[in-house]
Formats: sequence, C-alpha cells, structure tokens
Amino acid sequence: MFSRGARQLERRLRIQPLGTSLARAYAAGESALPQLTKDRYPVQRGDYAELTDNHLSFFKNLLGHRVITDASECEPYNIDWIKSVRGYSRCVLKPKTTEEVSKIVSFCNEHKVAICPQGGNTGLVGGSVPVFDEVVLSLSQMNQVLDINDTSGVLVCEAGCILENLDERLSDHGLMMPLDLGAKGSCHIGGNVSTNAGGLRLLRYGNLQGSVLGLEAVKANGEILDCLSTLKKDNTGFHLKHLFIGSEGSLGIVTKVAIQCPPKPKAVNLAFLGLKSFEDILKVLKKAKHELGEILSSCEMIDERSINVCTEHLKVKNPLPDYPFYMLIETHGSNNAHDEEKLNQFLENVMSDGLVLDGTATNEPSKMKNIWELRERITEGLLYDGYVFKYDISLPIENFYSLVPVMKERLGSDAVRISGYGHLGDGNIHLNISVKDFTQEIYKKIEPFVYEYTSKFRGSVSAEHGIGFRKPKYIHYSKSQESVQLMKELKKLMDPKGILNPYKVLP
Amino acid sequence: MFSRGARQLERRLRIQPLGTSLARAYAAGESALPQLTKDRYPVQRGDYAELTDNHLSFFKNLLGHRVITDASECEPYNIDWIKSVRGYSRCVLKPKTTEEVSKIVSFCNEHKVAICPQGGNTGLVGGSVPVFDEVVLSLSQMNQVLDINDTSGVLVCEAGCILENLDERLSDHGLMMPLDLGAKGSCHIGGNVSTNAGGLRLLRYGNLQGSVLGLEAVKANGEILDCLSTLKKDNTGFHLKHLFIGSEGSLGIVTKVAIQCPPKPKAVNLAFLGLKSFEDILKVLKKAKHELGEILSSCEMIDERSINVCTEHLKVKNPLPDYPFYMLIETHGSNNAHDEEKLNQFLENVMSDGLVLDGTATNEPSKMKNIWELRERITEGLLYDGYVFKYDISLPIENFYSLVPVMKERLGSDAVRISGYGHLGDGNIHLNISVKDFTQEIYKKIEPFVYEYTSKFRGSVSAEHGIGFRKPKYIHYSKSQESVQLMKELKKLMDPKGILNPYKVLP
Repeated sequence: MFSRGARQLERRLRIQPLGTSLARAYAAGESALPQLTKDRYPVQRGDYAELTDNHLSFFKNLLGHRVITDASECEPYNIDWIKSVRGYSRCVLKPKTTEEVSKIVSFCNEHKVAICPQGGNTGLVGGSVPVFDEVVLSLSQMNQVLDINDTSGVLVCEAGCILENLDERLSDHGLMMPLDLGAKGSCHIGGNVSTNAGGLRLLRYGNLQGSVLGLEAVKANGEILDCLSTLKKDNTGFHLKHLFIGSEGSLGIVTKVAIQCPPKPKAVNLAFLGLKSFEDILKVLKKAKHELGEILSSCEMIDERSINVCTEHLKVKNPLPDYPFYMLIETHGSNNAHDEEKLNQFLENVMSDGLVLDGTATNEPSKMKNIWELRERITEGLLYDGYVFKYDISLPIENFYSLVPVMKERLGSDAVRISGYGHLGDGNIHLNISVKDFTQEIYKKIEPFVYEYTSKFRGSVSAEHGIGFRKPKYIHYSKSQESVQLMKELKKLMDPKGILNPYKVLP
Repeated sequence: MFSRGARQLERRLRIQPLGTSLARAYAAGESALPQLTKDRYPVQRGDYAELTDNHLSFFKNLLGHRVITDASECEPYNIDWIKSVRGYSRCVLKPKTTEEVSKIVSFCNEHKVAICPQGGNTGLVGGSVPVFDEVVLSLSQMNQVLDINDTSGVLVCEAGCILENLDERLSDHGLMMPLDLGAKGSCHIGGNVSTNAGGLRLLRYGNLQGSVLGLEAVKANGEILDCLSTLKKDNTGFHLKHLFIGSEGSLGIVTKVAIQCPPKPKAVNLAFLGLKSFEDILKVLKKAKHELGEILSSCEMIDERSINVCTEHLKVKNPLPDYPFYMLIETHGSNNAHDEEKLNQFLENVMSDGLVLDGTATNEPSKMKNIWELRERITEGLLYDGYVFKYDISLPIENFYSLVPVMKERLGSDAVRISGYGHLGDGNIHLNISVKDFTQEIYKKIEPFVYEYTSKFRGSVSAEHGIGFRKPKYIHYSKSQESVQLMKELKKLMDPKGILNPYKVLP
C-alpha cells in the first residue's frame, strides 16, 4: 500500500543538518594518517623548484597572514577527505582577489613552483591535494557573491563560494543552483566548475557546460582571462570557457563564475519506492520520463546493499526494508496540485502494473530530507566498511547495473560488500567494493577488469568525479589515443612549464 | 477580450509548408548576383595553392561524380542565402563518409589547399561560403541517422542531416530535437553544432553546449577525432568536443554528433499577445517565468515594425493589428489540462493587470503554425525591404530593446524601417535597419556605433549567428584582447597552415 505523507518516517529518522556530513565522515574515518602519496604510489617528483625563503617572502609580502606554513595547520590541505592520498606541502596560500591569484601564479610560473589549486577539497580522485610539496592555492577566501539578477536569473560570484551557501542566497530571489550534490555543504562552486560536477539533478537542470554562462580564470602565466559573460547567447569566437570547465585546474585557475540559475520550484515531491529487479527499474524510469515529463527533477536508484550501508553504519532507518532495489523519484514544479496529481497517477500506474512493490511519497521538507539521507549518506557510511574500491562509471542505460552481478561473480567471498547506486536518469552508477583489507591480489582481480568492462560498452571510467591523481592511467579506457594526444598539446599550450596541478588528469 | 482557439486566424492565414521559406526567399531576392566578396571587401587572398588538375584528379579518384566543377553548378555553393557575399570556387566536394572527409582534408593540408566546410548554407554572417576560391566541402551527403535510443533519448547522426528531418524522425520515438530555428528546413545539424546555433527554445531546452553529448570531427591534418560519446556524464580529461561547438569549422570539421533529445511534449499551447510598451513586456516575461515555470518553452517579442514586414511583404495576416509590441508565449508539457489551466490563469492575470491589451491562445497545430509565421518569416520578409543592415545582439534584459529607439533617433529619415524582434527569454534581439540603398554615409552612422553601444553594456555583438566572414573586426567589442590572443593560439595549434575556413572568425 502507498502511504502518502510517509508518517512512519517522521519519528524514526534522525534529521541531519545538511552540509555536516563530510566533517562527520572525516572524523569517523580511521584516525591514522594515510600513507604519503609519494611512498604509496609509483610517482616521481617533477623538476619543480623547492620552496625557498625568497618564495615565502614574496607570498607573505603579498598576502600577509594569509600564508600558512605551520605543518599541522597545513595538514588538512594535504589530505583528501576519503584519506586516499596525502601530500606534504608546507605552504598554503589564501588569496582574496583575482589580482592576488594572478600575482601568485605569475611568480610561480617564473620560478617554476608547482601549484595545487584547491576548492572545498571534497574530490574523490585525489585531484585537490598536493602529490608532493606543491604550493596549495586555496580559493576559500574568495567567497563573495557579486551579483544576483532576479529577472535573468544569473548569479555572478567568486570561485570560493560554498555551493549550499549560494543556494540559500538564491532562495531569497526565488532562484536555485542548477546543481546539487552530497558535498554541497563543503564544496566550492569553483571546484564544481573545474571538475564539471554533475550531481543529483543533472537530469532536469542539465550540466555545467550548459549552465555556466561565463567565467574568469587565471592562466599559468598569470594572465587574467575575462570570459565572465552573463549572456545566454554569445557566439563571438571560440568558446574559451570550456577549456576550464572540467579540466580540473590544470589549464587555469577559475576565479569567478556566472551561472544561469533556474527558478526555485514552488512544489517539490519525493517518492521512495521498493522494487524487485533492475529490469523493473528500467521500466519505471521510462514511465517516469514519459508521465512526469517536465516535472521530473531526479531519478536515483539504490540497491539493497547500498541502503544497508546507511542503516547498519549510520543507523538511518529505512521505511521500506528488505527490497532488493529502491528508487527515489523527485519532482519540481510550479503547481503542487498539478504535480501531486501527476505523481499519484504515475505511482498508481506503476503499482498496479506490479513494477513497484511498495512505496511512500511526501512533500514535507523534513520527511524529504530524511529520505534523501538514505541516498546522500552512502558515501559517508561506506567509510566504516573498511577498505573500499570506489568506481564512478557511466554505462549505457541497459547496462547500468550489470557490473554489480559481474563483480559479485568474479570476487565471491573476497569482498565484504559489492553495491551499486547512483544517478539512474543520467546512466551514472557508483560501484563500491568493500573489502576487509586492501590486498594486491584483490586489487588485481578488480582492476583493470572494471575499466575494460566499461570500455567494452563505450562507457566512462569517470562519470562525474574526474581523473585527478588516481585515474590518469585509465583515461585511455574512455578516450582515444588521438584525444589524449590533443589534450597533451592543449596542456603544453596553456601551461608550458606544467606548474598547474601537476601529476593529475593526463597520463 | 481573449479569444481562445484563434478562430479568426484559421481562415485568414495562408498555411506555409515548413522548410520552404529559405528557397522562396532566395528566389524572391534581387535576381542579380551579389558582387564578388574579393571586390566588395578589403580582403587579400592567402598564400594557398591554386586548384590544379592534379588536385582535381585526386578528388575525382576519391569521390567520382561527387566532385562538382561546372561553374553554374558551383554557384549556389558560392553565395550565401541573403546574398551578402560571393566566392568563386570551382570545386565542390561531397564526401559520404568520415574517411573520405579525412582523406580530403589530409590532402588539402599537405598541398595547402584552403577548404570552406559547408552545411545547409543558411548562415547570416558569410561563414559558410568561400571568400575566394576555397574548395567547398559540402556535408550534404553525410545525412544518415545512425541511432535513436528510446530509453536514453540520445540521437546519433551524421553532420549533414537536416534539422527538420531529424525532428520528424525523432517524433516517431516520442522525442524531439532540443533546438528549433527558422532555417530548420535547410540547415544541417553539423552546421548548427559548428555555429552553436541557438534558436527559439533555448530558454527551455538549453544550448548545444549542454545538449551535444559527443561528436566526431576531422582535424586540419586529416586525423579523425572520436569524441562521439553518448553518455550524459563523462569526466575523463579535457572536454575536447567544445573546441568544435561554435568554432565555425575553423578548428575542425564536425562529421557526426550525439545529441540528448528531450521527450516530445504531449501538450503544446501558444499565446499571441498585444502590448503597449517594452516595460510591460519585461513584466510579462517575469510573470511568465514565475507562473508558467517548467512548461514555458519559448518567449519571443516582436515590435510592430517587424510584424509589418510579414503583413506588408508576405501578406501574412495579423490577428491582433496595431499594437506597438507583441509577445509569443509557448508552453510544452505532459498534461494539457494542467497546462491550459496554468496558461489561462497566467493570461487572466496579465490581462487584468492591464499589462496585455489583447491576445489569443490556441493549441491547434495549424493555428499555432500560422502564429509562428508572424515570427519566423520576418527574416524572409526583410529581403523585400531593400538593403538591410542586420544585427544579432545580446544585451542585458533591461537594455534588450533600448537600441531600437536609440537608432531611430540617430538615423531619422535615413532609414526606411528600424525594427527589433527576438528571443526575449534569452536576451537576444535581432535589430534590422532597412534603407533604400546602401550608402557609406548611412553605414558609418550605424557602425561601429551599434557595436560600441552593445559593448558598453557588456553585450554580445553576435548572439547566435556567429562571426563568420563579416564580423571578425568586431569581435573585440565582445571579447578581451587576451581572449582573442588565446583563440589565435588555439587556431595555430589546431590548424597551423590555416586551411580550414580561412578569413573567418578571427581578425
């Protein structure tokens, strides 16, 4: 039976303040520091300058106390939040203006000092922390909203603004950010743009390549490139902004962005469904697209093992226990009566077809937040599982889930848990393989097999997380030799000394 | 009074088959050939090879009868459809496969033969025809649909497919193209992508930078670059496809595209409104965004003088004569009862506020087509006006229409007609200044003033038409010196001999 209002959730679920999950997860992880990247991975330091007193004098003259050199203060900037990599930089710079960024980068270029640009440091592929002793250039102090235009819906802000804060600011103007992701309480918009972040509502609001109208970036030579257009249409020459969207800080440092923001929906509804098979999930997806049409804002799937991560480790209650598969279907619209009618009709259809076994739907904010927790806290919960091999894969929709049973077959009892969840509507699955301890033996059973499998279906070995430090050697599974060669030529053109985020992205 | 159903239109409007307007307009224009570009504009032929019998032999061996050398047969490929420019190429090549394109380009690069890639030749800035004797590489025979995936909504096709044909093919799958424009009956999807075409529904379905998932392109050295991903999310390295979206064939030749297509709406409604001032138009726009929300698919404005182009020259009837301003507001949705309720409520609100003086709304296809004619045939009608200075400008929404009264003031009786219409929801106005005959005196009164004015408001001197041959010297009004410099470096990297679409885009 369909329980509208999800009353049973109300009492049982612990309501979490948004945006604290990363900090909590960080604290919850093993307390020991991860091994230094240089010792764990076969990587050699490039021919970059070692930091000297002269360099530090320049930085301190420019930034004053916004230069961090104390070892323990530098530590959080050296470690990614899933503790997979660790650098040993002894210099963190916190510019407040584009001009300061320009002066820093120009100086570093001249002296061949390597730079690691850093936003909220919420990346999952080791792209946001130094590999060796690269100077960390943190954008955290460049966090000003410069303009919000109510009529055009365009936001202009600095790169260091936190995603959730921007969403709150926009809310007062009847607008919202076009992207949303689990790390919203910590991640920076500049980092989102630099990594072409996807997230939960790409299905509805599109990707950042479509919604970033303009940006300002500092090139490797320190030059400030002003592409900060706020126009929806501007076909005057090559579209340079795209050199910086998704290139992970290796072609330039994004300092300001202009983003097209959609109207904040007047009505939001969320359905949580239990299903028996992935085949049924595909059928429900197709029906949702067809019947919910323009109000469908998110369509996520979670398998039972992923849900269990939240219920076992984080004590989040599951209102619909013991189904092998779950779906979250969210609607955004301008008229709640219309949206409820569409959603109820859709739910009745999929229930009466036997595609959905049980479900609950609600439009009360606290209850919706509770349901979202079952999806958004999976990454955090997995940290308690032990060592987790994490994969962020795009596959053709028909093959979306096929990797999970294939890996179960392949690994058998070597794995504690093999689970899959993700952005069904975008064909993007997060595959997680939890093991008791990392061993080379298990590692070799998983990789490169998982990439070969993905490549066979012309999938992406990194759907939304990027390449960072940990995946350059796998890029060829998704990109042709000619493409990688052209990327290298672009890197050489834009950053001939290779000072920007070295050891990342390209093999 | 609001007349739902637009009955009065039914009898009076001539129904035009879509897609024939360009041919008609072409035939309707002055019959004399335009002056050769080389004689009309101060431009010098580059240091490219003259076509030799050896070159022709190579092409004929490769393509057989798909090489056109007859002067009169070559003519349509040498002249743009608004007859503003004319080249004198004596060689048109019609490859059928990417491999043939690759061989042609590789050969031309080796022998330094300049190439003009050509799609449907519907461009408005002289970008699609040769300036001198460049070999024309027509994509018209590469017109195969390769795949339509019903579940993911992804279309994969060759570059020479005509936009309207694609839309019809998709219709059988419950899908539609994410872009629509007046030239849809002639323009190629490859040309659309290469020029980052905008059109009538960008407001709703976003730009091509967001909806092109992947593409295949042939580089200047003949290398085939396979970026033909069909995935919505793929963050593996730099996003190379954007080098080709909107670079007007000057960094490579797009041969295949993969496009995310939205579901075809089950309900379409169209309102045609008469208003008294531009201030009221802005108010109605804001209300439409707020009240129609997710179903708003197009929001266009037309001033009286632009409407008159259709009524005077093309005898299209205007069901709401004699208002100074008009709006077209279209909705796309999945439930007609819901959409009509939203639209009627909105129309009642703007009527009772006195913002809209009169209007008509309909959802009958033939009636909607009739109303769209008043918008879509303006370009065609203007051809009858005499010489027309055409501008495609983006301005901040508050300043959207301000150029029209400013130009009226400035030109006085020098102009026959100064009119403005366009994509209000996207801030993109088409300004047209009709004069009896072109004179240097009038020209100098208009330019560069119109660009200076645009630049003052950080607008775009080419919103959606691109730079082509006719606007390179104006690019600096919208792009910084550093940006143009970087574009030149990219051009040099990608096409060191400058064989691809020379004399275009960059100054």
